[in-house]
Amino acid sequence: MPGNTFGQIFTVTTFGESHGKAIGCIVDGCPPNIALSEADIQPDLDRRKPGTSRHVTQRREADEVEILSGVFEGKTTGTPIALVIRNTDQRSKDYGNIAESFRPGHADYTYWHKYGIRDYRGGGRSSARETAARVAAGAIAKKWLRAQFGTEIVGYVTQVGEKHIAFEGEQYIAENPFFAANQSQIGDLEAYMDSIRKSLDSVGAKLTIVARNIPVGLGEPVFDRLDADIAHAMMGINAVKGVEIGDGFDVVAQRGSYHGDELTPTGFKTNHAGGILGGISTGQDISVNIAIKPTSSIATERESINIHGETMTLATHGRHDPCVGLRAAPIAEAMLALVLIDHALRHRAQNADVKVSTPDIEHL
Amino acid sequence: MPGNTFGQIFTVTTFGESHGKAIGCIVDGCPPNIALSEADIQPDLDRRKPGTSRHVTQRREADEVEILSGVFEGKTTGTPIALVIRNTDQRSKDYGNIAESFRPGHADYTYWHKYGIRDYRGGGRSSARETAARVAAGAIAKKWLRAQFGTEIVGYVTQVGEKHIAFEGEQYIAENPFFAANQSQIGDLEAYMDSIRKSLDSVGAKLTIVARNIPVGLGEPVFDRLDADIAHAMMGINAVKGVEIGDGFDVVAQRGSYHGDELTPTGFKTNHAGGILGGISTGQDISVNIAIKPTSSIATERESINIHGETMTLATHGRHDPCVGLRAAPIAEAMLALVLIDHALRHRAQNADVKVSTPDIEHL
Amino acid sequence: MPGNTFGQIFTVTTFGESHGKAIGCIVDGCPPNIALSEADIQPDLDRRKPGTSRHVTQRREADEVEILSGVFEGKTTGTPIALVIRNTDQRSKDYGNIAESFRPGHADYTYWHKYGIRDYRGGGRSSARETAARVAAGAIAKKWLRAQFGTEIVGYVTQVGEKHIAFEGEQYIAENPFFAANQSQIGDLEAYMDSIRKSLDSVGAKLTIVARNIPVGLGEPVFDRLDADIAHAMMGINAVKGVEIGDGFDVVAQRGSYHGDELTPTGFKTNHAGGILGGISTGQDISVNIAIKPTSSIATERESINIHGETMTLATHGRHDPCVGLRAAPIAEAMLALVLIDHALRHRAQNADVKVSTPDIEHL
Amino acid sequence: MPGNTFGQIFTVTTFGESHGKAIGCIVDGCPPNIALSEADIQPDLDRRKPGTSRHVTQRREADEVEILSGVFEGKTTGTPIALVIRNTDQRSKDYGNIAESFRPGHADYTYWHKYGIRDYRGGGRSSARETAARVAAGAIAKKWLRAQFGTEIVGYVTQVGEKHIAFEGEQYIAENPFFAANQSQIGDLEAYMDSIRKSLDSVGAKLTIVARNIPVGLGEPVFDRLDADIAHAMMGINAVKGVEIGDGFDVVAQRGSYHGDELTPTGFKTNHAGGILGGISTGQDISVNIAIKPTSSIATERESINIHGETMTLATHGRHDPCVGLRAAPIAEAMLALVLIDHALRHRAQNADVKVSTPDIEHL
Repeated sequence: MPGNTFGQIFTVTTFGESHGKAIGCIVDGCPPNIALSEADIQPDLDRRKPGTSRHVTQRREADEVEILSGVFEGKTTGTPIALVIRNTDQRSKDYGNIAESFRPGHADYTYWHKYGIRDYRGGGRSSARETAARVAAGAIAKKWLRAQFGTEIVGYVTQVGEKHIAFEGEQYIAENPFFAANQSQIGDLEAYMDSIRKSLDSVGAKLTIVARNIPVGLGEPVFDRLDADIAHAMMGINAVKGVEIGDGFDVVAQRGSYHGDELTPTGFKTNHAGGILGGISTGQDISVNIAIKPTSSIATERESINIHGETMTLATHGRHDPCVGLRAAPIAEAMLALVLIDHALRHRAQNADVKVSTPDIEHL
Repeated sequence: MPGNTFGQIFTVTTFGESHGKAIGCIVDGCPPNIALSEADIQPDLDRRKPGTSRHVTQRREADEVEILSGVFEGKTTGTPIALVIRNTDQRSKDYGNIAESFRPGHADYTYWHKYGIRDYRGGGRSSARETAARVAAGAIAKKWLRAQFGTEIVGYVTQVGEKHIAFEGEQYIAENPFFAANQSQIGDLEAYMDSIRKSLDSVGAKLTIVARNIPVGLGEPVFDRLDADIAHAMMGINAVKGVEIGDGFDVVAQRGSYHGDELTPTGFKTNHAGGILGGISTGQDISVNIAIKPTSSIATERESINIHGETMTLATHGRHDPCVGLRAAPIAEAMLALVLIDHALRHRAQNADVKVSTPDIEHL
Repeated sequence: MPGNTFGQIFTVTTFGESHGKAIGCIVDGCPPNIALSEADIQPDLDRRKPGTSRHVTQRREADEVEILSGVFEGKTTGTPIALVIRNTDQRSKDYGNIAESFRPGHADYTYWHKYGIRDYRGGGRSSARETAARVAAGAIAKKWLRAQFGTEIVGYVTQVGEKHIAFEGEQYIAENPFFAANQSQIGDLEAYMDSIRKSLDSVGAKLTIVARNIPVGLGEPVFDRLDADIAHAMMGINAVKGVEIGDGFDVVAQRGSYHGDELTPTGFKTNHAGGILGGISTGQDISVNIAIKPTSSIATERESINIHGETMTLATHGRHDPCVGLRAAPIAEAMLALVLIDHALRHRAQNADVKVSTPDIEHL
Repeated sequence: MPGNTFGQIFTVTTFGESHGKAIGCIVDGCPPNIALSEADIQPDLDRRKPGTSRHVTQRREADEVEILSGVFEGKTTGTPIALVIRNTDQRSKDYGNIAESFRPGHADYTYWHKYGIRDYRGGGRSSARETAARVAAGAIAKKWLRAQFGTEIVGYVTQVGEKHIAFEGEQYIAENPFFAANQSQIGDLEAYMDSIRKSLDSVGAKLTIVARNIPVGLGEPVFDRLDADIAHAMMGINAVKGVEIGDGFDVVAQRGSYHGDELTPTGFKTNHAGGILGGISTGQDISVNIAIKPTSSIATERESINIHGETMTLATHGRHDPCVGLRAAPIAEAMLALVLIDHALRHRAQNADVKVSTPDIEHL
């Protein structure tokens, strides 16, 4: 398969460029008879969309999703669901400079070398704008998971640049422009982000994504382990450079006697594993951390070359996020939801009849 | 696809359990006319095999690979290559205790709940023994990559437990039982590992894997980005809990002006990206870090339950690695090789005719 | 994968229902740098579209295709190409009767039982209207094949009901409403089709599809043989009940001494094989026959049941083709093109370096 | 995927050449907890194996299957099942002539051109010997289908050369060397086959394969329709040149009023559709016809060329079936079983919760 399809049973194939006519996707394999309308999808798109605070790109996009197929009389029919989001704010500008040069840290360079052509307007296909289609598809997955298992998926920012953000409560995430589960540091973060923006620079971010109410048994060893597919999904988000499951890199210095989560008749005592053992879900919360690099399009002058191999300096002006990680939570949630629904359906295919008696575990 | 096939064009489908008759795999999609014999595969198997020092499991396996098909008169024919490694040291023992109980931190629990049955002998399919098949397949991939691009892939341990290992030179990796690119700390590491083993406990490890001489253009955005598929491959190795590309989690605190690798007519000035931009290889070295958790089978008593949900204490005696990370380098190298060959072939399928003029870049 | 994606390297994922907002597809894996616009696609859509003669359905659809992505400055970029065709003639009518009943010979029954829901308007997803998306995708494939190999693909009707149609020349195919390679029988066929329509009945058809200028070596044994994938593609067209390659069912009564095509230094002497041996193209013309059943929606009263299991009689009035086979040639051509481009790219992935010296054979 | 894997959820990846060390396959995705041993597989292998009568090849192969993995204490574990059949009768002979020449009608030519190399011993990978691995995998599929739905799959020969074989009863199939559901024509067929063999020639055959007790709802439109996947499976068997579902090519001359199977509250009145409507099973018997070409390896002299493009004459002596169709019934049954189990699992993945009330229909 080419690279624009995600999943094996519940698949999402996305299309579209930053400044093309539209972006969108086809969701195939969705179970039938699920109540679905644009209203189920729009809220997550609104959480991700640009222009919602001064700390993100000022591009104005309504990001209104239209369902073109696969839903009849308010219910999914089991056939492909096509979702389209028209691009509206394709600001006309002179791309002459960007068109022939490569921004340090940007996909410009690799797209050009891979395909011998690139759509340079706003980053084309490599733009994070494409992730809106993933968020839309993820909203369908979330709805199904919630209905089937009560699954809830929550993402939040735990670090911006060198600023660690204390966890104070998930209820605060929606109340600030940083997707921070925090209320006491918001002023400090605003001042910090303002200083980053004024310095014509950008910073990275770290996020945690948690999924609760997960059935035991999801994951297809030895290669399509649940953790492996989560890593694939997360590292496949623009700008992600690191993925951890459970204790992540902290496990290196741990002892086995500490790391291994002990079991009791009423459940696990700890969750160092992050809800996955042997590549299969344990039924505990799944927890994932991701690292997102600083935006590569910055207004600071940098050294680079153009497509003719000539040296030049380059500064990117325009509407760019000073910290792309600030809008990543809905994307990461969506990707985790897509992994989970796909694995739930894959598990069901092979193991429909499995009945295990342990009373404390939720099953498919 | 079920979970035991890796890759899309160059595929590896593995089979086998720790104490079954044999383990092995079918490699499909291998280009024809490559010189190949068991002698090309055995060295990597020997690097991974158990029983080579007192710091790893004392199980004795020759790990002799046999090619059953796909090679004729010393050359690959383009048809499936079946590789088989017979298990020889399936020590007869009483599994009565393990058979019905769940080791903390082990896949016992999830396999049981997923399938409603498990092969409890030595961990069955969840045993790291299965990775020998991956190493065998990876050796074929390495050979092709070397012949095509001069690609070299090297993995080494950079941390064991709390012990950081300084990089002193790749030439030392093969000279110590720790896959350490180091010669000055070996005595210290031996004493450390002895103490871990005597404490009936285990520790984690961190590894770095580097691939050199990589063509530009590998990776299939937006989902099958090269970094995403590397993350999938690495997190799919037993016990891995974290994956980093390039600067990994350090990017969180970096500025864009620092992170973005500047370009000159003769190449990049730095490599914070780890050789991948926008999910596509830049032609620079690819660098990956992985975190491996401490072995879950330890002789220290732990609290657990059995399949009837009854509480119990459990200590696992027998032949287990006190640090599974110590044998992981050949496995991680193999997985990286499998990702790279698959992406090289995928790229070739779509982009055979791409010609880009920048003189300093190697192309497919 | 769910069932709405075709191909492995050059993939087409279609969406849409007969009376939904739109139909369309995403083409992924298309090689970059191909000149492409709607004008390359529209002609094949016009050949397939309804309402072009009195012998086909009178539904009026402009079938105007819009490219939403994947093309920049007139060239493909190697990223997904989204194609959309808006439905315009969704005649408002009372579906009350059809909504709850099953037409004999129609997919009504099986869609209902499979999904527990169906979009009954015009057949919903099971309508042949969906094939317009395939024709659109096929036009891209045809263009690439023509540019690479000079490949030409031609489909024509060789039998309608009991009427055999003599082959008189491909130049006549576009000159009559029957896709017949014939000019002398057209009057007879028109009278025949008029009589079928007046009898409120329908008939089947047989088509031949030929592809010329095919490289040798396409096909991936043992399962994805070229003939196997052609059979999959053809039997996947609505209403097809039989597929033949080369001499097809005539081979049963043939002797090996007759069937086996002898070779000479300048090529094969005959082509009983239909251009495929061992599942791999020989470089000769590929020839395929397909059988298409009579339209199931007819105005003749038939016995049936409704979704409550109650007996009833049913006659389907409205705008239906009296012979669906009459519009099938562009669809079959498109599917053959999709198989061929996918196999050309698959072959290239594994075998890019194959050089064979036989001078009379075209290679990739 | 390369071409040696069949199926999407229940996959079979085969390996091996006619005169290599072994043939076999890995079955992945098999549901756990199915009782399975070699004794479940061997009977179908024995039905297919060579040397059982004077009318088939005299090669002697025990075709003994060994299960290497995936079964523990007599039950499948849900992990990959590796099956191996060692080749024993690899008669040492001089292949000098065949090694460099192309048999008319044989895959020699295309394998050589595709891969630039071929294993010429006994046809290598293109030999029908490979199908033993499919038969072995199919036996597992048959067992599951029988246990789940009571499915029975029966294949028999309906025509050999110009000899039509009357259907007299399935009980006779196992009683003659022709897989004929007939007892009155056997003497005539034996004389006919003797005459073919003595004439140093070969003939084609036609087979019918029927599957009974099929759940309604199997098939994944629009591309992976059940009929499309059956066509793929059947046309993927060596030497098959035509596939029909239900009335097949007879539908061309039928009227819609005749072809469409009327429904009653107790079921369909007829089965012209062959058990599939809109690409989805109706619950009726599935019936398939296939055409198999005459063996290409014959002792009659034919004109050909060698790999240097030089003209030559060629006669193939040795142990070849005068009618390969005579051993095809177990292979075709196996392929149909593999399609059905894969679609049953695929259906279950997406539609597990579908409940439809029509009482006369069996469901998953």
